[in-house]
Amino acid sequence: MSKTIAIESPENKKQSEGIGIIETGYYTFSNPPDELILESGKPFGPVTLAYETYGKLNNQKTNAILVLHALSGDAHAAGYHQGDIKPGWWDEMIGPGKAFDTDTYFVICSNVIGGCRGSTGPSSINPDTNKPYGLGFPTITIKDMVNAQRRLIDHLGIPKLLCVVGGSMGGMQALQWAASYPDRVRSVIPIATTLKHSPQQIAFNEVGRQAIMADPDWNGGNYYAKVPPVKGLAVARMIGHITYMSDISMNNKFGRRFNNGKKHPRFGAEFEVEGYLHYHGDNFVKRFDANSYLYITRALDYFDLSNGRTLFEVFKGIKAQFLIIAFKSDWLYPAYQSKDILKICKLAGIEATYCEINSTYGHDAFLLEIEEETYLIRHFLKRVYNGYVMVEAHGI
Amino acid sequence: MSKTIAIESPENKKQSEGIGIIETGYYTFSNPPDELILESGKPFGPVTLAYETYGKLNNQKTNAILVLHALSGDAHAAGYHQGDIKPGWWDEMIGPGKAFDTDTYFVICSNVIGGCRGSTGPSSINPDTNKPYGLGFPTITIKDMVNAQRRLIDHLGIPKLLCVVGGSMGGMQALQWAASYPDRVRSVIPIATTLKHSPQQIAFNEVGRQAIMADPDWNGGNYYAKVPPVKGLAVARMIGHITYMSDISMNNKFGRRFNNGKKHPRFGAEFEVEGYLHYHGDNFVKRFDANSYLYITRALDYFDLSNGRTLFEVFKGIKAQFLIIAFKSDWLYPAYQSKDILKICKLAGIEATYCEINSTYGHDAFLLEIEEETYLIRHFLKRVYNGYVMVEAHGI
Repeated sequence: MSKTIAIESPENKKQSEGIGIIETGYYTFSNPPDELILESGKPFGPVTLAYETYGKLNNQKTNAILVLHALSGDAHAAGYHQGDIKPGWWDEMIGPGKAFDTDTYFVICSNVIGGCRGSTGPSSINPDTNKPYGLGFPTITIKDMVNAQRRLIDHLGIPKLLCVVGGSMGGMQALQWAASYPDRVRSVIPIATTLKHSPQQIAFNEVGRQAIMADPDWNGGNYYAKVPPVKGLAVARMIGHITYMSDISMNNKFGRRFNNGKKHPRFGAEFEVEGYLHYHGDNFVKRFDANSYLYITRALDYFDLSNGRTLFEVFKGIKAQFLIIAFKSDWLYPAYQSKDILKICKLAGIEATYCEINSTYGHDAFLLEIEEETYLIRHFLKRVYNGYVMVEAHGI
Repeated sequence: MSKTIAIESPENKKQSEGIGIIETGYYTFSNPPDELILESGKPFGPVTLAYETYGKLNNQKTNAILVLHALSGDAHAAGYHQGDIKPGWWDEMIGPGKAFDTDTYFVICSNVIGGCRGSTGPSSINPDTNKPYGLGFPTITIKDMVNAQRRLIDHLGIPKLLCVVGGSMGGMQALQWAASYPDRVRSVIPIATTLKHSPQQIAFNEVGRQAIMADPDWNGGNYYAKVPPVKGLAVARMIGHITYMSDISMNNKFGRRFNNGKKHPRFGAEFEVEGYLHYHGDNFVKRFDANSYLYITRALDYFDLSNGRTLFEVFKGIKAQFLIIAFKSDWLYPAYQSKDILKICKLAGIEATYCEINSTYGHDAFLLEIEEETYLIRHFLKRVYNGYVMVEAHGI
């Protein structure tokens, strides 16, 4: 389990106000009966999951919240790693007094299988060959990510999660948790997500993958001892960034201003918006593995919660309460997809609330609309937790 | 001037019903005072424009319509080239009895400067070096495209165009024609277009350019004697195709169906939507030059009709009537941008009509919503033409 180290230094007030310094933990499992059987039917292992925890698990083990990350996220959701100046990706939401209040709740976040931030993925060493898996890594799905996380939750000794929550791909995992393990989930907060990937969502992922695979440095996925396909991955990330913002948010942020206030050489980053895309593309390649990008986007594309059944069949087994959040300007995971989640919840008799936040930030809103999300989530969790405590205490 | 050859063979009824077989014509100009001075201030020449004409110019020269093409279009707007099985890109709109009725009107279409379909562009031979221009080609703008076309219209002996019309980039040229040559344009039909490129529109172009320039075969634009950057250009085109369609049209066309009804090897085109993108990407590279893609998309990004003046100043000088057409599901050139054209027309006292067609086809709708467009355009043109004939006859 990861350790929280209190910091008192006055130099770092901001760090000391929240989670503080945090270390990533690792959990590895491999042997039957604990091995992971992938959705494809193949057993796979050993599997290591990188994870972090914030707050304390209570004695009844009823206060655990699993936070699930999006495509480019990782286990480091909150607090600071030693020496870092930037906190985890959802630090504004997780900590004492925040939406996921660590004075009350025990929050867990793990890097998905297939990732490149500590969990087993295509850049991990294949113990059979002593070389990175590359394309030898098996196909993974959202269900596989969830099945791997279930092992971690078992390992942490948590019989039932108070809440599974995530935005985008994190929301798909949250939905899959509720569908796969209905007895282990008390509530679900799917944010800016979908019941199944649409052809437009597949298409955007596909051009990102094509950009990576068109880069000769990709070399069929075998580049770990050489130069990685940084140009292709940067293009993929740039495409992503356009879809994470909105027409309005780009207008507000950049307008038609020139980069650094001046014209640049031909086909350079002349406009501010181009400079932004280049900056984020170039930064991404330093922290992300191109093969992980291929595998994880493919898992997104495969995602269809119904998976051969009817949605009604899937949802009628779910016992959790839902708080569904969408954002008006999100055109990558448009609000209608969240309304579809509400619709099937209502049809299946599930207690569900739908909130559409009037944001201009596009898909990125799930990382930016902190105040609105905090308000909605804090009250929802309180209600679920109080009900849960009551149930547990009286055995209702 | 291009020649129309009547065809009577019963084998080819469809061809004989419309424009028939058509040949592309070429007009070259270079010497002062007829040389082209680019917006950058540089004189440039010689310039060749590929063009086609359909119908006959009347004696009063009052029936000429200039059709302006989009990013990947060309001079071949209607009819068939000898041996072709597919007609020009707007054949359904141009011909006897069609929206642009060649029994009444004389229709002209020319490939833009910077293009690769017969007009002078980066793949043309630079007479100073006897090698293709490559990146030695000067920066061009929408205004430069229009200024070059103006030479062609002079050459054809047309004092005033009955109409300038185009979708997407063609619409920008139409707007620029009205702004640059108010005395030479009787009416304007800007379709699915904008007064200025937005940061989101710039961003999509930029990732296309980055995909091309990331391809080592691009080689700084110097690839004409070697292998062209086909992979990069295909990725750029795939990005384009996503933006030309809509979420709904992709759902209707592909859903989540597998390509050829079956699963494919990992990271191949498993979904139908991927097969579609690959097909169009691969086809595009056979007919389009990567450097032209860079130059023309850059011209699009630079487009801002106000260009240092106020829009009111630009529009108050315009004497033409406007028919502005937009499409509900077009998210690349959203309807609000067309409404902005209407707004400034009204403010400047210009006679303008705005029509938003309730299409699900996205930006592609300007090439697909033939029936609706025909209805709107036919009546608009008739009214303008009848008014024009009256004015000419009575010298009002």
